[in-house]
Amino acid sequence: MDEDALARLYKDFDAEHMIPLWTQTGELMPLSPTSRALPHVWKWDTLLPLAERAGELVPVGRGGERRAIALANPGLDGRPYTTPTLWSAIQYLGPREVAPEHRHSQNAFRFVVEGEGVWTVVDGDPVAMRRGDFLLTPGWHFHGHHNETDQPMAWLDGLDIPLAHYTGTGFFEFGPDQVTDSTTPDVSRSERLWAYPGLRPLSGLDDRPSSPIAAYRWEHTDRALTEQLALEDEGHPGVTGPGHAAVRFTNPTTGGDVMPTIRAEFHRLRAGASTAAKREVGSAVWQVFDGDGEVTLGDKEISVGRGDLFVVPSWVPVTVRAGTALDLFRFADTPIFERLHSYREETAR
Amino acid sequence: MDEDALARLYKDFDAEHMIPLWTQTGELMPLSPTSRALPHVWKWDTLLPLAERAGELVPVGRGGERRAIALANPGLDGRPYTTPTLWSAIQYLGPREVAPEHRHSQNAFRFVVEGEGVWTVVDGDPVAMRRGDFLLTPGWHFHGHHNETDQPMAWLDGLDIPLAHYTGTGFFEFGPDQVTDSTTPDVSRSERLWAYPGLRPLSGLDDRPSSPIAAYRWEHTDRALTEQLALEDEGHPGVTGPGHAAVRFTNPTTGGDVMPTIRAEFHRLRAGASTAAKREVGSAVWQVFDGDGEVTLGDKEISVGRGDLFVVPSWVPVTVRAGTALDLFRFADTPIFERLHSYREETAR
Amino acid sequence: MDEDALARLYKDFDAEHMIPLWTQTGELMPLSPTSRALPHVWKWDTLLPLAERAGELVPVGRGGERRAIALANPGLDGRPYTTPTLWSAIQYLGPREVAPEHRHSQNAFRFVVEGEGVWTVVDGDPVAMRRGDFLLTPGWHFHGHHNETDQPMAWLDGLDIPLAHYTGTGFFEFGPDQVTDSTTPDVSRSERLWAYPGLRPLSGLDDRPSSPIAAYRWEHTDRALTEQLALEDEGHPGVTGPGHAAVRFTNPTTGGDVMPTIRAEFHRLRAGASTAAKREVGSAVWQVFDGDGEVTLGDKEISVGRGDLFVVPSWVPVTVRAGTALDLFRFADTPIFERLHSYREETAR
Amino acid sequence: MDEDALARLYKDFDAEHMIPLWTQTGELMPLSPTSRALPHVWKWDTLLPLAERAGELVPVGRGGERRAIALANPGLDGRPYTTPTLWSAIQYLGPREVAPEHRHSQNAFRFVVEGEGVWTVVDGDPVAMRRGDFLLTPGWHFHGHHNETDQPMAWLDGLDIPLAHYTGTGFFEFGPDQVTDSTTPDVSRSERLWAYPGLRPLSGLDDRPSSPIAAYRWEHTDRALTEQLALEDEGHPGVTGPGHAAVRFTNPTTGGDVMPTIRAEFHRLRAGASTAAKREVGSAVWQVFDGDGEVTLGDKEISVGRGDLFVVPSWVPVTVRAGTALDLFRFADTPIFERLHSYREETAR
Repeated sequence: MDEDALARLYKDFDAEHMIPLWTQTGELMPLSPTSRALPHVWKWDTLLPLAERAGELVPVGRGGERRAIALANPGLDGRPYTTPTLWSAIQYLGPREVAPEHRHSQNAFRFVVEGEGVWTVVDGDPVAMRRGDFLLTPGWHFHGHHNETDQPMAWLDGLDIPLAHYTGTGFFEFGPDQVTDSTTPDVSRSERLWAYPGLRPLSGLDDRPSSPIAAYRWEHTDRALTEQLALEDEGHPGVTGPGHAAVRFTNPTTGGDVMPTIRAEFHRLRAGASTAAKREVGSAVWQVFDGDGEVTLGDKEISVGRGDLFVVPSWVPVTVRAGTALDLFRFADTPIFERLHSYREETAR
Repeated sequence: MDEDALARLYKDFDAEHMIPLWTQTGELMPLSPTSRALPHVWKWDTLLPLAERAGELVPVGRGGERRAIALANPGLDGRPYTTPTLWSAIQYLGPREVAPEHRHSQNAFRFVVEGEGVWTVVDGDPVAMRRGDFLLTPGWHFHGHHNETDQPMAWLDGLDIPLAHYTGTGFFEFGPDQVTDSTTPDVSRSERLWAYPGLRPLSGLDDRPSSPIAAYRWEHTDRALTEQLALEDEGHPGVTGPGHAAVRFTNPTTGGDVMPTIRAEFHRLRAGASTAAKREVGSAVWQVFDGDGEVTLGDKEISVGRGDLFVVPSWVPVTVRAGTALDLFRFADTPIFERLHSYREETAR
Repeated sequence: MDEDALARLYKDFDAEHMIPLWTQTGELMPLSPTSRALPHVWKWDTLLPLAERAGELVPVGRGGERRAIALANPGLDGRPYTTPTLWSAIQYLGPREVAPEHRHSQNAFRFVVEGEGVWTVVDGDPVAMRRGDFLLTPGWHFHGHHNETDQPMAWLDGLDIPLAHYTGTGFFEFGPDQVTDSTTPDVSRSERLWAYPGLRPLSGLDDRPSSPIAAYRWEHTDRALTEQLALEDEGHPGVTGPGHAAVRFTNPTTGGDVMPTIRAEFHRLRAGASTAAKREVGSAVWQVFDGDGEVTLGDKEISVGRGDLFVVPSWVPVTVRAGTALDLFRFADTPIFERLHSYREETAR
Repeated sequence: MDEDALARLYKDFDAEHMIPLWTQTGELMPLSPTSRALPHVWKWDTLLPLAERAGELVPVGRGGERRAIALANPGLDGRPYTTPTLWSAIQYLGPREVAPEHRHSQNAFRFVVEGEGVWTVVDGDPVAMRRGDFLLTPGWHFHGHHNETDQPMAWLDGLDIPLAHYTGTGFFEFGPDQVTDSTTPDVSRSERLWAYPGLRPLSGLDDRPSSPIAAYRWEHTDRALTEQLALEDEGHPGVTGPGHAAVRFTNPTTGGDVMPTIRAEFHRLRAGASTAAKREVGSAVWQVFDGDGEVTLGDKEISVGRGDLFVVPSWVPVTVRAGTALDLFRFADTPIFERLHSYREETAR
């Protein structure tokens, strides 16, 4: 081959914004998914003190908008992305602080691993945040937060920011600096209308892309998991695997995922039990809600305890083994790949 | 025209199983729906004593299968049909009696206007029946009933028997003479798995044509309606109309109707309030759960009280006005016509 | 048992419009579907001369609307129904005659077994009718017909009139006495917009309950069937069974059936081939388009030839065997039962 | 504020793989989409000679797999991506050359702007490629190409490689070095089964995520566009805008887009006509098939002629104005954002 001619050709390609496939097939189209994201664990004991320090040094307010600190995957070049599609952050609100209202097309949720006393106001509806609650702010809903106590509060935020950023498809709009309704009811109006088993208000018959339930309360999640394990004890079906109870949070208008891009679940393992080893297309983030255990991520083995977060990149096999009884919150981008018909999974026998 | 030739032609048509359209267009294809079913009311005070007499005279058991007495629409030629598509009946089970197990492709529900103490066993899952509960037996689920008390119990059965009978599409299978599980838990296993707001067990991710929730409990229905009216008092959206709260019972795997052919709802009117005058394609049956009121069915005005049932044929305008506060259960065949794209409705301004 | 008391009870039931279930379970809910409709054949050689006599004696026009003569199933009590859901009729239009415009919520199609020269005008779009064409008039589209030749023309009409009549759900509206566009193009505007393989006009992106294609032309149907048999000869998949080619007419906006209540198909059998013996929930009507053969309907065996029509009631097993090469048009109410999740089928091995 | 403390905090964040939101809100979540991709045009007169030089210097075969040269968006950091989700490339196959078989989960199509003589073999089905044809290779179908002539041939490839690569979700598998069927039929078996207006083989009733039609032929596309403009001349609806005919290539089993991630359309403008100015979420690539015109991309105005390609990044307004009559092929990632409910569009009045 004429190496000079080839070099000239490549240079001319470059000048014309052309890139040959044959020099990069392997990297571009590997035999199976090779995410640049890496398996990683963030310890709650590390995250929380750093958030507290931010609470002392950095004000919350218009412009910065939120005192949220993203979990940045070590494989993703210093971008504030936990995975190529998912953002997760610890958000911290000091005593009596207010995070101003805004809205964005990106879908968001909050999960509360500890504390209470903050209300998130979603399109004017104040929603109390308490340990174990899973709260939604679907795309293009105005929202702000205010802490009504003398204690700070920290929680987990999850969004599809990286996907929107990468594809260049996000919209954002500022709202009022103060929340639009500063009352502090125990139960949101959205729950009063929607949070019943199998009941739908006649005033809400149009299907929605995201769930109209603003808060999935711990009391229901806990009861559902408790009953699954009780049914297992009684010899009836219901659990996901031996000693493994699990629920998915769903949109009651469709039965599908809570938001178009994000799946959310809660898992409970009996002491000593473990999940089936599984790998799947797309990425997930887990947070330990209670208890201690071991996680295998590919060939990496890690111990986790209350509040710890770990990320499972695409196609990396994951197993969770409970030391003590173990409760875990999990969210994932699976709905994206299911909707695009590119989802695959493999469960080890 | 040659009348003799025409008469001969019609006779020849008849011999060859042919019928001309032109002699019947008007009856076959009226300008707007003219159901042969008639508006009608059955009074609970009449129904219940007759059911009690049946309880004394007619055993329940294999062959007859159920001590159910159908509400036969006066317009439907002595067929046991409340409407062309819907069967409704009062079912009566004496103290300690057992109705044997069977299954059929027809979809069934029960609604309890008073009493308790009977368990319906659906595919082996015992489901307690209590006042205000709405209970499902979707097509092809085995079911039997047993009364664990020394009191009789009566309730409303609703099925799509007439549609299946008319179209010739029903299947039936006998099960055991006794119920397969005679335990008497407060809560069914189906509820323990499924009856949570927005939560779905990971072991139940396949969508189902009918709801997996065997019982929709009065406590939730009542609370949902109470909250809608409270939201109205507070100036927030939620009610169906002024003073009119309403919920639809839905399938949590799809957000749609509980069964493919039957819609079920619960309506609550404040004293003095009324529903919007409305007519729609398809038929409905209402039962007063509590309170007194007036119903206008076309040009017919009737007073109704606790337990009374009335039928609304296709395209007959209906308005319900509450005297006292009024609670009503309603079921209808609307899903059939929505699925076949032939549904229409008209609400008077 | 006290027979007198029972007789009194039954009399009181009757007075109150109540009917006990236990006296009729077997008839109402048989073990498997038992349609009152009967298998039956109508011979084209009988139908056509009767239609011609009607052409001489009965004018077509406003009021009678159409010179259509229904095939009345011998089991259905003298109603003009071919099955409980389906109407089929031979329609006859004399030279230069016009059938006035009207519309109805009932869904309609025409299939042309012989002749040409009539245009059906559907919402102002003139659609030529020719041998082998399958033409749609979905619910609530205005339509009229006019014969532009000096020859009469007869064709098959299929509608869901019986379902709408039984359920009391049909609407009807008169249109102009003359067709709104009396031009006679070879190809309708609907075809010019829609009748391409896999192409959809950008001006027609909203899905529709019924197909926007007004005419499915014989040339395409014939080619599709010819290719399936050619692929079979070449050893490739494509046929429905050995020597049995078949296509379904579909709605290009959804890929589903042409209309919400009616399925339509075309079948071709090589000489000597036969369809698999099959029974299914719901009813069907077949018309022989070309060739001769034998049909087994339950335990009834009949010979059929060009133009002959036979009806297959619900759950009656049917097999078609070709004597010569055999072409058949078929329509059925299957979409109703698929949409209501009550469809079942059984194919003999 | 204590700048030192803040610096220490940021350093500690960094060490723990944490990144604050407040320093990057504006870039991460802009008010409206700001794609890093730039509007750009590649001229066919430049592309083709470079592809020819590659044809002389670079063999096609196992390993490199394809002689395809990607259009690399100048804004995307030297990645071979035309947009963040879409790959487009000119592929070049010399006389008698064979590109070996492989399959990948990424969805692919080819569009032929000139030439013929190559067959692409998709899961064993040989598909002829000719000017104007649009050809599919949906995810996980084996495919290879072979040139049966003494002339080279070049065409446009489009895939969703960047999305799969970014999200880490792609699978790849090598097939035989030679194509599995080297016959050269005019029409593929897939077309013989599927390429009819509104007809579906009974052997193909299961819906598919991607279209089963392997080739959408120019003759149909051309006729559909010609008819739209003729209907406009006759005063009937059908065109997308004045002087603007357009069709979308669809999946006949669903009526939706040909593949889950890629929309494909063909547009025709009369001389002097133009498309409505429009911007939308997601990105698109256009190729001029015939004629000359002007394109406005944001504030950039460019002249385009036969074979030229231009890319429209997310939310960049685009207008195409025909000089001569102008035919254009267009593909876009819109199905992704429609399925994820994040699609928006704005058309200038």
